[in-house]
Amino acid sequence: MDLLYISGLLATAAFAASGVLAALGKRIDLFGAVVVAVVTAVGGGTLRDLILDAPVFWLRDEAWLLVAVVIGCFAFSLRSQLDRYGNALAYLDAMGVALVAAGALQKCVELGLPGLHGVALGVITGIGGGLIRDTLTSRDTLLVSPELYATPIILGLTVQYVAYQWFGLSNIAALFLGGAIIFVFRALAIRLDLRMPSRFVNQRSE
Amino acid sequence: MDLLYISGLLATAAFAASGVLAALGKRIDLFGAVVVAVVTAVGGGTLRDLILDAPVFWLRDEAWLLVAVVIGCFAFSLRSQLDRYGNALAYLDAMGVALVAAGALQKCVELGLPGLHGVALGVITGIGGGLIRDTLTSRDTLLVSPELYATPIILGLTVQYVAYQWFGLSNIAALFLGGAIIFVFRALAIRLDLRMPSRFVNQRSE
Amino acid sequence: MDLLYISGLLATAAFAASGVLAALGKRIDLFGAVVVAVVTAVGGGTLRDLILDAPVFWLRDEAWLLVAVVIGCFAFSLRSQLDRYGNALAYLDAMGVALVAAGALQKCVELGLPGLHGVALGVITGIGGGLIRDTLTSRDTLLVSPELYATPIILGLTVQYVAYQWFGLSNIAALFLGGAIIFVFRALAIRLDLRMPSRFVNQRSE
Repeated sequence: MDLLYISGLLATAAFAASGVLAALGKRIDLFGAVVVAVVTAVGGGTLRDLILDAPVFWLRDEAWLLVAVVIGCFAFSLRSQLDRYGNALAYLDAMGVALVAAGALQKCVELGLPGLHGVALGVITGIGGGLIRDTLTSRDTLLVSPELYATPIILGLTVQYVAYQWFGLSNIAALFLGGAIIFVFRALAIRLDLRMPSRFVNQRSE
Repeated sequence: MDLLYISGLLATAAFAASGVLAALGKRIDLFGAVVVAVVTAVGGGTLRDLILDAPVFWLRDEAWLLVAVVIGCFAFSLRSQLDRYGNALAYLDAMGVALVAAGALQKCVELGLPGLHGVALGVITGIGGGLIRDTLTSRDTLLVSPELYATPIILGLTVQYVAYQWFGLSNIAALFLGGAIIFVFRALAIRLDLRMPSRFVNQRSE
Repeated sequence: MDLLYISGLLATAAFAASGVLAALGKRIDLFGAVVVAVVTAVGGGTLRDLILDAPVFWLRDEAWLLVAVVIGCFAFSLRSQLDRYGNALAYLDAMGVALVAAGALQKCVELGLPGLHGVALGVITGIGGGLIRDTLTSRDTLLVSPELYATPIILGLTVQYVAYQWFGLSNIAALFLGGAIIFVFRALAIRLDLRMPSRFVNQRSE
């Protein structure tokens, strides 16, 4: 479906730009930054395909790597302006996470996997690239931060699965519902600096 | 075999709890902690299955994720008490490592792989989840620590392979022998703070 | 081809030794160091095979693990002298990276993959083991450093692909051309402390 394909390329672009931004905390050159951008962009989907024993998606179509490389170069060349757009990038990353997480759950549902597996693979696909990005650039991962990061994804995917399985929404409609919930919830969390109620947060800090 | 299956679920529970405990060094919320718990619990076995080109084990049976999620939530809700049980968790982790490492070697032997491959895959399966856990939570991995961590696994797996191949023990008997050696040796190392003789330890520290 | 096989084993030995050297920054014992050596030695090729859905190379032939384990033990036992050879190891690592990156591109070309995919997989194969090594030993990866690391690989692989595809060099001749460019460029970068022109380097440091 064309809309899904274009959404996927947008998510790839958003992840690639977020990879470059993360790398700017270190002294890094153009090609190093492009490698981080590409790995961030395709990392989550690669993990999904390996676990599902499906052909790795970016080997079947050059567009994925091409978008990641071009956006990576572009973001690096604009690096002095990137800080100003840091917030825009957080929203783009949120959009990317929403699209690929919801897409992965849809794929699992089509393969007949149970909902729990679909949600788990959705989370891995959504945040896998970001976790690799944070590891390669020696940053604390967003997972171990007080930000609402995993929560919107788990909530959105759960609603998506329930809407499809119990309320009869079409797979595509459920996907866009789930993706929208993930994106809106995460965007509100960024905008309003939302946190979990304190009883659901570990208060100690190293 | 039922005993193996139940052992595997126990190992999963132990790994999930150790994931939550590792995450408590950081400010993290419930869902972040559950994601760390799940990745820790299934990470090693997932690596094993990918390398052997076998179907990923947790996709075939919902029990694995279910145990990891439930124990993850439970451990997080008891987090203020977890410190008290830190030692108990170290033993649980040792049991988990012993069970999955010995189980992986058995699987390799059944597939007709040489002993060296079996030991290597046993080590990867045993400590893979823990290495991912330590990476995600920005901790030094147990591998690069003065603790006896890889040593008991390599020793136990070697004995397990020799007992099966040269002394004619059944695969299951050898598995429990190997697992017992790994667990007892690791438990003694924790209890008595055992270290390698100093000529086998690198003394410099960063 | 025998020459390729022997080159591969040399690359494996170089990576294994570099793994031990990286681990020496931490208090680590013999078996921990050997595990780091093995993972460093086979990590990049394992990623390549998983992504291409090929059988993992070290499962088909015991020589790979054997070389990694023997060199790992040997390097650890000579650890007090290793520092003196730190530079030699950097060149060995450069040779390893050159050989496996160029070999991976060749494999992709034989599989009929486009050049962009071949270069991407060449980079992943070349630096994958090193990235895992740096992560396991809690070091900043070479990727996010001011050193010329990704650049020689991307340049050499691009030349290799163009020489094969547009100038009709045989696959093997192109492989050795690409590998030689990667090695010489990287060796010069180490020797002369070369950096990218400053407009291609991010100047900020965390």
